[in-house]
Parts: sequence; C-alpha cells; structure tokens
Amino acid sequence: MRILIKNGYIVSMASEIKKGDILIEDDRIARIGMIDCEADKVIDATNKIVMPGLINAHTHVGMALFRGYADEDELMTWLSEKMWPIEDKMSASDVYYASLLSAIEMIKSGTTTFNDNYFYEEETAKAAEKTGMRAILSRCVIGDADEATKRLAEAEELYNNWHNKCNGRIKICVGPHAPYTCSPETLKRCVKLADRLGTPIAIHYLETKDEVKKMRDNYNMTSTEYIKKAGLFNYHVMLAHGVHIDSESLETLKEISGGVIHNPISNQKLGSGFADITKLRMNGINVALGTDGQGSTNTLDMFEEIKSAAYIQKALYNSATAISGEDVLKMATIEGAKVLGIDSEVGSLEEGKKADIIIIDMKKPHLCPAHNIYSLLAYSVNGADVETSIIDGNIVMENRVINGIDETEIMNACSRIKECLFNNR
Amino acid sequence: MRILIKNGYIVSMASEIKKGDILIEDDRIARIGMIDCEADKVIDATNKIVMPGLINAHTHVGMALFRGYADEDELMTWLSEKMWPIEDKMSASDVYYASLLSAIEMIKSGTTTFNDNYFYEEETAKAAEKTGMRAILSRCVIGDADEATKRLAEAEELYNNWHNKCNGRIKICVGPHAPYTCSPETLKRCVKLADRLGTPIAIHYLETKDEVKKMRDNYNMTSTEYIKKAGLFNYHVMLAHGVHIDSESLETLKEISGGVIHNPISNQKLGSGFADITKLRMNGINVALGTDGQGSTNTLDMFEEIKSAAYIQKALYNSATAISGEDVLKMATIEGAKVLGIDSEVGSLEEGKKADIIIIDMKKPHLCPAHNIYSLLAYSVNGADVETSIIDGNIVMENRVINGIDETEIMNACSRIKECLFNNR
Repeated sequence: MRILIKNGYIVSMASEIKKGDILIEDDRIARIGMIDCEADKVIDATNKIVMPGLINAHTHVGMALFRGYADEDELMTWLSEKMWPIEDKMSASDVYYASLLSAIEMIKSGTTTFNDNYFYEEETAKAAEKTGMRAILSRCVIGDADEATKRLAEAEELYNNWHNKCNGRIKICVGPHAPYTCSPETLKRCVKLADRLGTPIAIHYLETKDEVKKMRDNYNMTSTEYIKKAGLFNYHVMLAHGVHIDSESLETLKEISGGVIHNPISNQKLGSGFADITKLRMNGINVALGTDGQGSTNTLDMFEEIKSAAYIQKALYNSATAISGEDVLKMATIEGAKVLGIDSEVGSLEEGKKADIIIIDMKKPHLCPAHNIYSLLAYSVNGADVETSIIDGNIVMENRVINGIDETEIMNACSRIKECLFNNR
Repeated sequence: MRILIKNGYIVSMASEIKKGDILIEDDRIARIGMIDCEADKVIDATNKIVMPGLINAHTHVGMALFRGYADEDELMTWLSEKMWPIEDKMSASDVYYASLLSAIEMIKSGTTTFNDNYFYEEETAKAAEKTGMRAILSRCVIGDADEATKRLAEAEELYNNWHNKCNGRIKICVGPHAPYTCSPETLKRCVKLADRLGTPIAIHYLETKDEVKKMRDNYNMTSTEYIKKAGLFNYHVMLAHGVHIDSESLETLKEISGGVIHNPISNQKLGSGFADITKLRMNGINVALGTDGQGSTNTLDMFEEIKSAAYIQKALYNSATAISGEDVLKMATIEGAKVLGIDSEVGSLEEGKKADIIIIDMKKPHLCPAHNIYSLLAYSVNGADVETSIIDGNIVMENRVINGIDETEIMNACSRIKECLFNNR
C-alpha cells in the first residue's frame, strides 16, 4: 500500500518546517520531499500541517469510566476511597470498553502511541489491536507476597500473549505501581522479570509530597534511592510524574536510560504541584508528556498537556522564554519516544521510520493568521483540529471518522457500564 | 420571535442542574420548566447541556492578527518592541477584520459577551453589531497631555456613537490602560469622563512584578494606592489581571464595586505569574475570567481559561479542593457578569433575563460517560463542543455554522492583512 501526502507543511520534529510531500510505503515513511509518483491513495494536505502523531507517555485508559467521578479530592483520598473501591468491581469487559473509548478519544485528538499501566491490560491490548493504535502496555504490579506473585504472573502472561504483536505495534513492559505501594521485594521481582523478558520498566515516581514523606518515614530513603537500590536504574526506566525531585535525585537521573514523564494537568488537578521540568531538561534528562487517566485529567487530549506544560514553566520561572512552543512539541513527540525507548521507530517524520502521522487543517478561525506553525501547534490547536491520523501506515481516521469503529455504540456501552458499576451491581 | 429549547440539561448557574425546557420570547428568557407551547423555532436539546453564554471579561480582539507573532517574549519586551510598533501601523479596517475574526472565534467557543479595550474601537463595535455579540467596549487611553486629550475625545465619541446601541447589546465604558502608563492627571481625566457619562472604568492592574517596582520607584505607591488616589474606586471598576495583589490592596478591594478579571493563560504565558484568586474569592471579591488578546493567549477559547484557572489554584494550594468545577464556571458566567456590572441582565439562565444561551452536545467520546455535568464543563469540554449559540434572543450559530457570516472570506482577509502589516507596507 502506497499513500502519498501532498503539499503539506511538514513539521518533522527532526529538521526545519518545510512544504512538501510524504510517501508512505506499507508501514514506513519511504520518502519526504517533492514527490510525483503513483499511489493507492493521495491525501491533499494543502494548507494543512503534517506532523508526527503525539505520544501519550503515561496513562491508564481503563479509567475512562471515571471521567468526572471524583474531581475534587486529594490524590490519596481519591485513590484509596474513590478509585480503588470502584476498580475492584470492574470486569475485563469493562476495561475493554473503557480502552476502546479512550483509543477513540486519543485518535481524535492526535495521539498515535500510548503507554498504559493498569489491570486487565490484555483488554487494552485488544482495544489497541482493534483501533490500530501503537501501545506500550504493562500490568500494574502492586502490593506484596501472593498478591504480587499473582500480578507478576499476569504481567508475564501479558508479555507472552501480546509482546511485539500487530506488526510490532504492541509492546509489553513491566510496571510496578510506585515506590510507596511496592515492597523492596516486589520491586526486585519486577526488576528480575524485566531482566528476563528484556523490557523497560514503568513506574510512578515522586508524584506527591505525601510520597516523599512516606518513603522517609518507612525506609528513611528518597524514592530515588529506594528504586535505585532495587536495581531499576540498570534498565530503561519510564518515571511518571517527577513533581518532587530533590537535587540528589536529579544527579541520579542524569545517568539513567529513559526519562521522566510530565503530567501537568493531573499534577495540578490532584493538588500534587508544579513539576520543574525546565531543570530536568537543562540537565539533559529526557522529559515526555502524558495525560494520566481520565479519573484525574478528564480528557486524553495531548494538546491540552502541551499548552499546560508550556504555561507552567513560563509562570514558574517568571519568564516567557523559559520554554518554547517547539520544546513542548518535542516532549510530545521525539522526546516522548526517547523516554519510551522507541525513538528509532517513531516520534519524528524521517525516511525509514514508521508512518505515524497526523494532519491538521489550519483553515480555522482560531488558527488564523499563521505567523509561526510551532506556536499554532503549541498554543492554539486543540484535539478537535486533528483531521486525519495514520498509524503504522494505516489510515485510522480520515476527516474525523475513525475507520471500522462505531463510536456511538462504544459511547452507549460505556454509559451503560458506568450505570451498572456505580449502582452496585 | 419565540424559540423553544426542549429537553436539555439546564445548567442555569442560578439553581441546581435539571432537565427541562426554555422558552425565549424576543430577546428574553420567558420561561424555564416543562413547557409545551407553539414556537417559531424548536431546538431539540436531548442529551445536550444548555447554559449561559460565557463572558470573556478582558480581551483585546484587535490583536487577532498577532496570534503566534511573538510568543516567547517577556511582557515589557513583548509590548514595547513587538506589539506597540506593529500596532502603530494598523488601520481602522485592520481592526475591523481582526474583530470579526475574533467574534467568530468567540462565538464558536461559547462566548456571548466580551469586554474589550483597544484602539479603533468603533470597528470592534461594528463587528459586534454584525455578528450579534454582546460587548462592553472602551477606547484605550494611554499617555499624557495632548496624546491623552486625543484619546479621551475618541473615547467620548465612541460612547456617543455606540453606547446602548443594538437593543442595548453594546455598551461603552472608559478604559485607561494601566497605572504605569497613565499619569495621575490622565487617570483623573478618565474618572471625570466616566463620571460625566455614567460608565464603569476598565483598567489593567497589578499584572507584573515590573509594574509593582515601577509604581514604587516613580510614585512611592502601590498601583492600588495610585488608582485609589485618582478616584477610580468611587466608580464600578473592572481590574484586569491582579497577579500581584499585596494584603493592603486586598483590604481596599473588599470595598469596591466591580472586581478583578483573572487571565490565567496570559499571565502564565507572559511569565507574569500565578494569580491567587482563591484568596480574592475567600475575601468576597468578585473574580471574572478573561482571555486577554491573541497576542498573548493565542486563542479566545474561554473553556481553556476555565480549565487553567482551576488547575492553577489546585496546584498553588497543593489541594484538589481549592476550587471546584462549579466555582470556575461561575467565574466565566454569573461572577463575570457581576464584575462587568451586567448581572441583572446576563450570566445565568433565569426568567426575565436576556437570552444569551449556549448548547453543548454531550455525545462525544471525551464527554462520555457523564458523572457530573459541572465537571464535564470545567474539565472536559472545549470550545469546539459548542453547537449552538443564542445572543439577545437571536440564534447567532446553529450546528457550528455562524449566521450571515462567510468565515472563509474573513480568514482570507485576515491572512492578507497580516502579510501586508508584517511586510512593511
């Protein structure tokens, strides 16, 4: 299959923005330039932006059903009194429909890759398979002893069933929940599993002041020391949040493979604080962007995270120059890919890379006039402006219609499930 | 003309959310409840939210042409080196087209009233007249002596030509620019004009640390003392920004008529800081929301400001309960109307009030499932979800098509004007 995208503004995130064409052959970008050739499908991108699909580097898409359920609670109350009790009632099928709804949301707002950590994760894999999304998935490992054993077994089963499936679009990693919810023994078992399977490790990290205190009280250590001691930093790590990183931790992070995933909206909304990602980036640490789950962030629109990430740094540093539109776009694309360890395949538009591409129509009042395309993308575009999405060379959405999916049916199913779940079935 | 809106979720901002109908007769809300009657037009609002149109309480819509022009500059550099030089080149017609583009942007993102301060303001009045928007407008008065005299004359002319025109939809007030750009004499002349015309006064106020320093250096006063001394607080005042309000100023503000307009995105993006509006609101001071102009905020989507306002307070106070979704929605509706002094007419859906109403379709993946409508509105909805808008009893947009306006023509005109302006015509 050859797809030719003609005459767009190519925002490759690898070189200067230029007008041109992109030829896709099967799952890869074959050529970028001025191209005249036969193709099975030609997409006219005149007055449109053509850019890499966004990478949502930290989310829990099974939480779609909790959007707006408990919006004004502190993180620990929110987790232990609201989220965990209702999650205990969820079935595999509930997670499947929540994941489908989330995949639709993500595709419709420009995300092509997501990194998810939850339970019934094989259902999320099925949803990624069905919708055509690229995904890195992990079964959330939490607790100790038998509980951990059961979850580690599920994590391995997930790997066996799904790793590198769908033309390599779906990858599995190991996902211990957080320093404060995993015993040293559990963390070490996670490391052992990651070592045996050869996968990266995803973990929540320094999200709240509570966590800082808990780790000091319980272990007399920082979260950084705790997970370092368990051996996590010998592997590629994806550290979600990083709101409360002290200077010693910063030194440790300089040496790691992987990076930190910034979730600006979730961190603000749960009252966790403003993460100083400028300091991380100035120290050469890769920073990705994530939405977290809809239980805290409400939507999976990465363009909202892009805006929020930029706003926060400019205000924190009392400086409009603290971070640029181009910088935050990098975090949502190529830097995100680096944190996830998939930058040789995705995150920028380059010949030979996978064809994960979104197209944005600039003919909208809020995108006019066009002074600077990075600015438009960082500060004006929202998810609803994404017109077409291609993942792994497949057109998953064209003119905002998702291929092979009945959106209304999935929304109706999710509304029904929500009614059942919250009415104590 | 009778319009009947049937079977919506009525978010009146005056009482509990309930399902029901709204009957509009001419420019006013005639009834709210379960209504069966004849109407010239029936709108089916099943599974839709029906709420007051949003109030953008501080903007400069003539700046539409500068969207993305100078995104990474500090406020003073941005103003004196970027905005003012290019503004000097602008013609009346440029401001007209910029205002039309802005009006389209606002209508398409749910705003029905805007409070604008700029120059060639009669052009903005014409754009409000043409698009059907409700507006409070002021000619920006800046400088001293002859310069101020000229602008005060223009301000009065604007009043004479436009005040209470278009069925009272357009109102004029007096708009001195800021404490640091108006001499004491100029401020006093503004107060005198406002007194004579009987209008409120709109002014920029405590936006940056620079302003705090400048006022101390030049006058050995706070901005609050300075404008109080000029007599502004004897009138209804609309104070834009209020990022750096000290405790003495807070005491003064408790006594004023009017309030503070919070512009969370502009304040962050220009590096001005995070305004502590929780403190203001806890002290009984009305706080409205505004977007500022597109030169700093990039879009006029009030739903972005709503989100940002909530996020900031929760993070500032390290508390998810610092402000609720309902609170920020109030700021964008009824509290905004109070700050502008028009709350007897708009800002909530109540019988007898003007019919300024927006309708939002909830059948969207990112708005599903519906646990809490205030949460959906505050944290999930974006401007593109607004389907229909009614202002002063007129349907100005239906199913996202704006009545009597050729959007493409206006976008093309603005793109052409931008090319001319920035190529030194």
